[in-house]
Formats: sequence, C-alpha cells, structure tokens
Amino acid sequence: MGENADTEIIEHHVDEEMEKKRILRSHGSSFMESVTPSERDGHSSTQSSHRLLAYSDALISIIATVMILPVAHTKVQDNEELKESLQVLLTTKIAVYLMTFLIVTVAWAAHIRLFQVIERIDDCLALLNLACMMLITFLPYTFSLMATFPENILGILLFCACVMVLGLIQAVIVVYGFSRPFLLNDQIQVSENHVFYKHHILKVIMRVPIMCFFASIFSFIFFQLSYVILAIIIFLPYISQSLKWCRSKAIAIIIFLPYISQSLKWCRSKAIGQVEETPDSFLFYTYHPNEPLSKERVEAFSDGVFAIVATLLILDICEDNVPDPVVVQNQYGGSLVAALQEYGPEYLAYFGSFATVALLWFVHHSLFLHVTRTTRFMGLLNTFSLAFVGGLPLAYQLTHEFPRNSRNELEAIQISCVIIFFAGVFQLAIWVAALFSERETLHPYVRYGGREHTFMLAKLALYPCVALGTFFLTCFLSKFSASIFHMMEITVPFAFLLLRLLVRGGLALLRLVFCPDRPETRSALEEEEEEARMPFNAMIT
Amino acid sequence: MGENADTEIIEHHVDEEMEKKRILRSHGSSFMESVTPSERDGHSSTQSSHRLLAYSDALISIIATVMILPVAHTKVQDNEELKESLQVLLTTKIAVYLMTFLIVTVAWAAHIRLFQVIERIDDCLALLNLACMMLITFLPYTFSLMATFPENILGILLFCACVMVLGLIQAVIVVYGFSRPFLLNDQIQVSENHVFYKHHILKVIMRVPIMCFFASIFSFIFFQLSYVILAIIIFLPYISQSLKWCRSKAIAIIIFLPYISQSLKWCRSKAIGQVEETPDSFLFYTYHPNEPLSKERVEAFSDGVFAIVATLLILDICEDNVPDPVVVQNQYGGSLVAALQEYGPEYLAYFGSFATVALLWFVHHSLFLHVTRTTRFMGLLNTFSLAFVGGLPLAYQLTHEFPRNSRNELEAIQISCVIIFFAGVFQLAIWVAALFSERETLHPYVRYGGREHTFMLAKLALYPCVALGTFFLTCFLSKFSASIFHMMEITVPFAFLLLRLLVRGGLALLRLVFCPDRPETRSALEEEEEEARMPFNAMIT
Repeated sequence: MGENADTEIIEHHVDEEMEKKRILRSHGSSFMESVTPSERDGHSSTQSSHRLLAYSDALISIIATVMILPVAHTKVQDNEELKESLQVLLTTKIAVYLMTFLIVTVAWAAHIRLFQVIERIDDCLALLNLACMMLITFLPYTFSLMATFPENILGILLFCACVMVLGLIQAVIVVYGFSRPFLLNDQIQVSENHVFYKHHILKVIMRVPIMCFFASIFSFIFFQLSYVILAIIIFLPYISQSLKWCRSKAIAIIIFLPYISQSLKWCRSKAIGQVEETPDSFLFYTYHPNEPLSKERVEAFSDGVFAIVATLLILDICEDNVPDPVVVQNQYGGSLVAALQEYGPEYLAYFGSFATVALLWFVHHSLFLHVTRTTRFMGLLNTFSLAFVGGLPLAYQLTHEFPRNSRNELEAIQISCVIIFFAGVFQLAIWVAALFSERETLHPYVRYGGREHTFMLAKLALYPCVALGTFFLTCFLSKFSASIFHMMEITVPFAFLLLRLLVRGGLALLRLVFCPDRPETRSALEEEEEEARMPFNAMIT
Repeated sequence: MGENADTEIIEHHVDEEMEKKRILRSHGSSFMESVTPSERDGHSSTQSSHRLLAYSDALISIIATVMILPVAHTKVQDNEELKESLQVLLTTKIAVYLMTFLIVTVAWAAHIRLFQVIERIDDCLALLNLACMMLITFLPYTFSLMATFPENILGILLFCACVMVLGLIQAVIVVYGFSRPFLLNDQIQVSENHVFYKHHILKVIMRVPIMCFFASIFSFIFFQLSYVILAIIIFLPYISQSLKWCRSKAIAIIIFLPYISQSLKWCRSKAIGQVEETPDSFLFYTYHPNEPLSKERVEAFSDGVFAIVATLLILDICEDNVPDPVVVQNQYGGSLVAALQEYGPEYLAYFGSFATVALLWFVHHSLFLHVTRTTRFMGLLNTFSLAFVGGLPLAYQLTHEFPRNSRNELEAIQISCVIIFFAGVFQLAIWVAALFSERETLHPYVRYGGREHTFMLAKLALYPCVALGTFFLTCFLSKFSASIFHMMEITVPFAFLLLRLLVRGGLALLRLVFCPDRPETRSALEEEEEEARMPFNAMIT
C-alpha cells in the first residue's frame, strides 16, 4: 500500500508538471515551474530558476536605490540658500545616484536577457549567478569613486574590472548552459542552430566588456576618452531604443490612412505569426524595443525599489531620532514628549513619503494587473519612473529641514511636487505606450473604450494632476505652501479610496451633458460589442 | 474579422484561467491567479493578491532586519575590552533588534493568516493593507524608545496604539471580506458557516489588541506589568507552539512500537482525510504547529531578509568609505590607492559577509526546492535562522575593527563563527522537522533513503561544521585566527561547487569500507524501490 501511494503521488506530480508546462508554454513564460528532478533523465539537480531570479531582483533593486542615501544624508545648512547647496548636490551625488540607477538597470536588463535563454538552473549556475550579484552590488562604489575623484583613473579601472569579470562569468554561464541543453529555453532546445545561437549570444554579451577593456586602456593615455566610452555603454541602448520606438510609432501615426494602416497591420501580423511559428527565428538579444521583457521580473524589481524606498526614512528615524537619555534629562527636564516634539516634522516626513510611495506602488500594481505583456520600451519608461520614486525620500526629508515659510521650504516642497509629478507621468507613459499596441499588451477590459479604461486613466492621472496643482498653488500662495502640501498628502489616499465613485459620477455627468438622449444603463455586453466596433483601434495599430 | 479575433483571444484567456484555477485548486494554493474581471458577475475590480503579498513581504523583511543597523553603527572603542562594550550593546540594542525581529515576524504571521482567509483583493483592501504596512514599519521605532527609556510609558503607549490600530484595520478587512464573499478563500466560500468563521476570526484577531489595551492602561498604574503583558503577547505563541510540537513528537518517538505508530498513522491519515474532505472543518486560525504556512510567502520573506542583509554593508561602504579629496591630498600626497588601502579590511568584510549570506541563501533555496509544504513550526525555525543571518553584517564588521592579533579580534571572529553556526543549525533544524513528517512536507527524492538525501544533508551541514571547526581552531591557534577565518571564507564557496563530487566520493568510500560485496552501480529505479522498502519511514511517522 505504501508503494502504491508513493507511485500515485509521483504520477500525480508528473501529470501536474506536464499540464503546467503546457500552459506555461502557451503563455510564453516559465517562471512557475517547480522542481522537476528526474524528469529529464538523470539530470536530477535541475531546478526552476524562479526563486533565484526573485532574489537577484531584490538585490539589484536595493543596490539601484542605495545611492540616494549619500544624497539624503548631505546636510543642507539653513543659512545658505537651498539653491547653492543643491548645486553642490546636483553636480556629484545626484549624478552618481542617477548613473548608478541607470547602469544597474542596464546590468539587470542583461541579466533578464541571459535568463530568458537559460530557463532552468542547477547548483553550479546558482553559485555563478551569486558571484555576478556580488560584482553588481560593488558597482555603485566604483561610481562614487569616479564622481569624487574624476581625474583619478582608479575608479574607471575598478569599474571596468568589475564589468569585465561580470562579462566573463556571464559568458561562462552561457557556455555551461549550452553544454547542458536541458537547461535552455525550450525554443532554443528544439531548434538545431545551437552553435549559431551560442555564438550570437556570446558576441552580444562580450560587447560591453570589450568596450570596457578599451576604456581601461585609454584611461592610461587620455582618461577623458574613457568617460566617453563609458557614457556610450550606459546610454546608447536607451537612446537607440527610444529613438527606434518613437520613429516606428511616428510613422504609424502620420500615415494614418486606414488602408495603409490595415496593410501595415496585416504585414505585422504576418511577421509576428512567422516569428511565433518558426522556432528558429530570433527573439533573444535583438535589442528591439518591442522585444518582450519578463513581466514578472519587472514587477519583482519594481516591488523591491518601492519597498526599499518606502522604508529608507524609517531606517534613519530608528537610528537618529531616539533622543539621548542624558540630553532629555538636562534639556527637557526629563520630559520625553517634549524631546520628541523636536522630531515631529521628521515623523510627518516619514508618513508622507511612505504614503506617497505606497500609493505610487498601488498605481503601478493596478497598471500591471491589466498589462499582459511588457516590452523593452515599457521597461525603460518604468526604470525612469522608478528613478524618480527613489528620489522621493530625499525630497520629503528636505521639506522638514527648514523653518516654516522660508524660501528654502517653498523650494523643497516644489521639488517634491516635481519628483512626484515625473514619477507619476512616467507611469502614465507606460500606459500610453501600452495603448499604442494594446492588442498585444493590454487586457481587453482596459483597452480604449473598455469598461475599466476611464477608471485606470483616472488612477494614473491622479498623482501627476495633484502634484501639478500643488506646484502651481504653492507658486501663488507661497505663504501657505506647507499647509497646502500636507493637505494634499492627507486627501490623496482618500481620493484613491473614492476614485471609483468619483469616476462613475464624472462619467454620468459627462454623458448627461453631451448626449442626454442616450440610455444610461447599458449592459456590459453592449459595451463590449461597442469596443469591438471602435474605430480607434484599427486606426492606430 | 476584428471581432472574431477579439472573442477568440478572450475565450482563450478564459480557458487558460479555468485551467490554471483547476490546477491551483488541486495544489491548494492560489497565489498565481491573474486578473479575473467579470468572472464573478459584476465584480470587475477583484484582483489576485499575489503581488500585494510579495510587496508586503518585502516591506516586512526590510523592517525586521533594519534594527541591526543601530547595533552595527555603535562604535566599539579599541582601548576598552570588547566584552564590556558588548555588554552595553547586548543590554539594549541587540535586545531591541531581536525583539523587533520577533514582533515583526509575529505581525507577519498574522498577516499570512489573514490573507489565507481572504484570497482575492480589490482596491479598497489593497489600500487598507498598505495602511497596515505603514503601522508595522513604525513598530521598531517604538521598541527603540522602550529600550532607551524603559521607565517612560510613552514607548509602551505608542506601541500599544500601533497594535490596536493594526488590529482594528485587520478587523475592518475581515468584515469587509465577509461582506463580499467572492473575496474569500474557496473553502470558506463553499461552507455555510460564514457567520461562525467571521466571529471566530475576529475573536482571534482582537485578542492581541485587547491585551495591548490592558497593557496601556496598566502602564499608568504599574508599568512593569505592561512589559510582562507585552512579553506574553510576543513569546506565548512561540513557546506554546514549540512545546506542543516537541510533546507530540516526543510521544511519537517514545512509543515507537511499530503497531502503535501504524495505528497512529492510520488515525492521522483519517483525520487529514476528514479535514480535506469536509469543507467546514477548521484550518484557519488554529495556532496549531502543523497548521500549513504559505510556502511562497516564507520564501519571499526569507529572500527579502537575505537580500537586505547582503547589501547592508555596501550601504555603509558607499556612504562612509569614499575618502575626502582634501584628506587624500594632504595625508596621502594625492595617492588614492594609498588612501583606499586604509579601507582594505572593510572591503574584505563586505565580500566575506556577502558571500556568507549568499551561500546561506543558496542552502535555504536548495532546502525549500525540496520542501512541498511548510508548517508553522518550520516557519518558526526559519525565523530563528533569519534572526541570526541578520546579525552577520555586525559580526563581520566587528572582525575588521580591531588591530591584528588583539584579543578583541579573536573574540569578534569567534562571535562570527557562533552566529554562522546558529544560522546554519536552524536551517538544519527545518530539515529535521520536515523529516519528521516527510511524507507531507518533503519531495520523495530527498526523503530518508532517497537519492538526494545525503547530498542535501551535506549541503545543510557544511556551514555549521565549518563554523564549529573554525571556532575550535581559533581557540587553539589564536595567533592565526584571522588567517584561519579568511581561509574559511575563501574555501567554502569552492566546497559548495565541488560538494556533489565530494559527497559521491565519500559515499563510494563508505560503501567500499562497510559493504564491499554490494554492487556499486545501482540504477535509480532500484534506489527508488529500496526507498519504498525503507523501514525508517514507517517507524517514525
């Protein structure tokens, strides 16, 4: 009986595995496979890479946002003007933060690409990946060195050495993966062009380390050139991607005569059909802005950034804002409440920044619930949004460091508004980019004309609108800037709670004003039918 | 044609949803459901809670480990003995760290319990959950206040206020969830005892806030009593769980006459069968140590802790270890390399701590790959292991703060060994606890006698053994303690890489020594058959 039960369990397990696999294949992703020992004869140590990637995402997201700490901890003196001290900040620390964020996300994108090819791991690959992570976490430090000692080549050399070793480890991972084909993506596994794939991927991977090698050699001769090379390494993929995407979309919009767009659509659907049907077609390492990006990993990375950013201020508060017992005894006559009142603005800053970050996460979460497929371009916009989110704790910390109604306070509040605005606007941009190819990237319910479309738009537009409104209000009513800002903080969460009601009311009002003769209560089915009749979709895509 | 394509896509999507659901239901978990608007008529805003929980796990894991920072940043003067300064540390900051870790994991366990009942969310629940998170992240600060001002009741009051508001929000979530039954767990949805469930859950949830209410009232009269109540709140669930588990296991082991164990097994299997078959049976909020705990959430929480701990030191390095240009110019004659050599030991500490944390993560990852179901008791052991992991950066930072061959250095290294030892031993304990009920909790391949069993054991035992060995070596060869420690750091990663070979070699050797007449090359099938024949399983379970 024991034996029977055992084999039954195993069979059941295998059945489930098979079913899962089939579904996953139809989804085109593979992040949920659990252990499948002995499934591929003898390779009992093969594992799903899901958790390894989640851990890597957590590490990379923490490292990407860490460099905001030196910026936040720079003490801005109240007697000097905020602008001047900000210039000092801007020149080095903020630049280091942004550069680190961008380079780390470049490394992260490379990591995603690599593990879209290698879908299963074993112990050896897991350890190699951890070595990669160690090197990536060291990158921000080399950037700090470069920013503090721009004329010293040590920073460049360290950075180049890290990147070259990283490239080597990645190459080892690829070679190891291709030597054990059961670790590879199913698409590659089925194809017969293993050698071709391998060489292409190695070529792409080694491009950056080789450029770094030249940069490190040039640093001995003429170090300015090294910086140019490094800048090319960081920015080129971003710029070329954005340009390509904009161009392709511009063409699609300008030539919006329906028949041409229809034929374009036909061509593209043919092209996509081909891509999906022939397994040997090239979907990896193309650097095309429409190349798919693992949605799960974008979410995991974003979650990591939002989580660490939301808690950055409590890190400081726990460490710095517990008063010294001696000081409390001498200065406040033993009254802890009086001593803590000193820190009042800091608690306010903490709750404000936590609430803002949490609500931006909420918007991001709502958006990605409706996204079915992410592209590289959407990933890029997401990165920009996250870079601004990372700046939020700094902005909130600034708001409470100056006395009430000083010019510095006003400027700090305005900077906060600008940062919130851009963080929100880039989220909105993800949505707009998704709408451009909504048939592939969005769930039917949120497409243009869909039932949830307006509500989603309202969610995404709330923060940018509120931030813009607060910015202009503080310009006119500069005396009440702090009160306006705090009022905004308090009302926004409630606005999110009541948003659905507000949107429904607004829509009903609009309908009443513009088409009073149309029946108001349409069934969901009718709405869906209308969605299919919508001319907008056909025109744009 | 457009309409056709659309409906096809939707149908396909719904089909997939259904299939996924069926599989997930058979797995007993529901963490992978994606958006299912309009599936439950009209409730288009219902969402899967997967990402919300992942984000909550990330936040809670960061907060749990944050309080190690004040400990790590306490400057230990070299002239005083480490022991004395450690006593100062021990009394307050380490206590705060451990207390925070425990209370946050208690809050986390409550959160898991809550979202095992409420499986789907909507916008309102998401926002309420974010409010919960904000309060949880504030808990460590109240603990710091309590530790610094033990005789001032403000800390107690703040803590109690936080917990009471938390309890209220959770109660609101439960009431809201039960008012919209489609958000609930399928098991509860099907049952007819909604009111009974609701009252039971509310009763359990409100227990802690009510105790806190009494604690806050007693704090005005006799504040020592409040601390007793708080201690009961934190430790009671842990102690009662461990005692229960130990007792049940002790009974099972002492009475190991096969027929009794067989009948016990039969009884239990009957009991489990009943539990799984009758939907009205009680699996929620039982506080039983064998109550299942979401494996995904344990993994996500552990990943968060490992990630933040691995990067804690680079946070410090990036901020503090970039030398000032003026200092470099004046003290080192402009030589950056000479200035950075000062920080050499800190880089070493960083790489050492990162490698250790990463390898402990690797062991954890390997272990949980083979675990099919986690119980509350395993979660408890995991919490203890993680609490020690959180102490690692501190230990590594201590190792480089003292001059070579001082007594302090020796003690710092020994503390590191002890921490690594306990972090590893608790991981081993998870494995042992899983082995006790291996049929429910472990994959067949790693059960006693399984193919991967020895290998898994070796992986888990490596760190405790090495730490213990290093500890005793440094006792005898105290002069070379630093070299021994660094040698250990370098060799361990390679040991992991070669572990499979080592284990295979060791096993072959053992086989050769003890049963030289047995054939060495047995097929996997034979091994599996032998596994079924193993008497051990029947004896213990």
